[in-house]
Amino acid sequence: MNANEPLAIGIDIGGTGTKFGIVDRDGNVLFSGEMSTKKHKEIGSFIDELYEHLHVLIDKAGGIGRMRGIGMGAPNGNYYSGTIEYAPNLPWKGIIPLAKLVTDKFQLPVKLTNDANAAAIGEMMYGAAKGMKDFIMITLGTGVGSGIVANGQLIYGHDGFAGELGHTIVIPDGRMHEGTGKKGSLESYASATGVRLTALEVLENSQEDSLLRSADKSTLDSKVVYDAAIKGDKLALEIFEFTGKILGLALANAVMFSSPEAIILFGGLTKSGDLILKPTRMHMEENLIQVFQNKVKILVSHLKESDAAILGASALVWESNQ
Amino acid sequence: MNANEPLAIGIDIGGTGTKFGIVDRDGNVLFSGEMSTKKHKEIGSFIDELYEHLHVLIDKAGGIGRMRGIGMGAPNGNYYSGTIEYAPNLPWKGIIPLAKLVTDKFQLPVKLTNDANAAAIGEMMYGAAKGMKDFIMITLGTGVGSGIVANGQLIYGHDGFAGELGHTIVIPDGRMHEGTGKKGSLESYASATGVRLTALEVLENSQEDSLLRSADKSTLDSKVVYDAAIKGDKLALEIFEFTGKILGLALANAVMFSSPEAIILFGGLTKSGDLILKPTRMHMEENLIQVFQNKVKILVSHLKESDAAILGASALVWESNQ
Repeated sequence: MNANEPLAIGIDIGGTGTKFGIVDRDGNVLFSGEMSTKKHKEIGSFIDELYEHLHVLIDKAGGIGRMRGIGMGAPNGNYYSGTIEYAPNLPWKGIIPLAKLVTDKFQLPVKLTNDANAAAIGEMMYGAAKGMKDFIMITLGTGVGSGIVANGQLIYGHDGFAGELGHTIVIPDGRMHEGTGKKGSLESYASATGVRLTALEVLENSQEDSLLRSADKSTLDSKVVYDAAIKGDKLALEIFEFTGKILGLALANAVMFSSPEAIILFGGLTKSGDLILKPTRMHMEENLIQVFQNKVKILVSHLKESDAAILGASALVWESNQ
Repeated sequence: MNANEPLAIGIDIGGTGTKFGIVDRDGNVLFSGEMSTKKHKEIGSFIDELYEHLHVLIDKAGGIGRMRGIGMGAPNGNYYSGTIEYAPNLPWKGIIPLAKLVTDKFQLPVKLTNDANAAAIGEMMYGAAKGMKDFIMITLGTGVGSGIVANGQLIYGHDGFAGELGHTIVIPDGRMHEGTGKKGSLESYASATGVRLTALEVLENSQEDSLLRSADKSTLDSKVVYDAAIKGDKLALEIFEFTGKILGLALANAVMFSSPEAIILFGGLTKSGDLILKPTRMHMEENLIQVFQNKVKILVSHLKESDAAILGASALVWESNQ
């Protein structure tokens, strides 16, 4: 580490927790940390705690003078206005001038975009999408986010909010999404919450014996379903098949829209490997018209999960300095 | 008309007919004509007839020396390779090297893209999307086509086939599309064929009295439904409501993907005006998450229908000469 080399701060705000770190230009996360998003009902106290944590890391990394800027990813983060607007998964409602608040606190330039857009830029700079000009990044976490790159550029859209694939409707009049009030969106099925709801539904609607029946209902998640599925549990496999069917349909629709070279998946659900990827690929191909068949790669991000969100956010700083 | 001014040839190949014309740089269609696509089982005889017709127009317009090139729009037309590939609505199957065949015949440079992409470029150069950097063009004709413009550029995608919104699945396991074999695509509902099928279904499934019951089943189309609807016919209104519900849902999904400033609609169905636009707008808004609500315009193309397809195709010639 060259002591004069400029560094970037990356902050990723998720519905549950927030990750932050200090990153060099080659994509090494030098220092990092984590805190709760959820517990802060007010944005002010959130930024105060964030500052306390980061302050320590900044000092360790050589002081504020080495920081080129702050890149932030957050649900419904707007690249143009620097605001978070009506984010269904965050505790702060309405329009929050996040970039301005963070700039005021840290006295550094701030770039904000939605978390999945940040992840897409991270994959393009350091990850599986290196060298690609057309790809779609999909994050399968608490929610489902996406970042769309076409002609080598991230699509921000007219208002800065493009890429909300998680909220597109896959099953009309389908499962209600508590955050948005909309029915049948991809996020209601392919997110951590969605898989959990599917598991509870499948257990309730079936008489079949299953390892999942003895699982603690309050901690039933895709990891528990995975553990049962690799033991051949029929209902657990059914849950992955159902989730893959819906995710595959959504991917097919996305492919017919922007015809990417690859779709990069990231997040908790991808840890189930082929259990989720196989049905997803199969149903994607099944719904594609011939001209798109057998040519779009579904890749899993190979960035370290703990680093990826921070890397993506920090990449915004370098991108705007090029 | 300056006798030295260069001109462009625009050719639009549709499932039923092909339109062609000679256009100046200001978007005036100087000479134009039309022929059947459907009757040509072989691409060779199609190009021969096209040449015969255009040859006459080229002579009228001052000879081949004034022609800067040929722009073509066709279903599944590929901008990169100049081929038509597996077009479900055309009589020619497999991969057709259209640009090469037309270049060989006319001895002029040829640019090809899909018909809706060509329409989008036409709207951007001469029509309702003048000055816009983010919009989606949707053509509601025999089929449903789309062209997506983001960051001021048409999205061709990795393989040149982006923008097939008509084939995205809106109703999983819904109505079968005869051309693609897929179920529940936007095109199976919002195309001319789709509206006709909806009308036949509604008539069959209802006991309600309707002006449509006395219509000739073989010519029942959106014009006939329109004529009944403006007289207050309940089933006719139901057909528009149903079509608007599905189109609105598809538009909402497209908006959440690329967040355009406007959606430009073009084609037969738009002639029904508010009968189709009102339910479409309503259901689009209903399916949008809050951040996108009440800010995307749905506009109807104001280009003369007979000229628009030719203008769009010819615009490819000027675009590639800029």
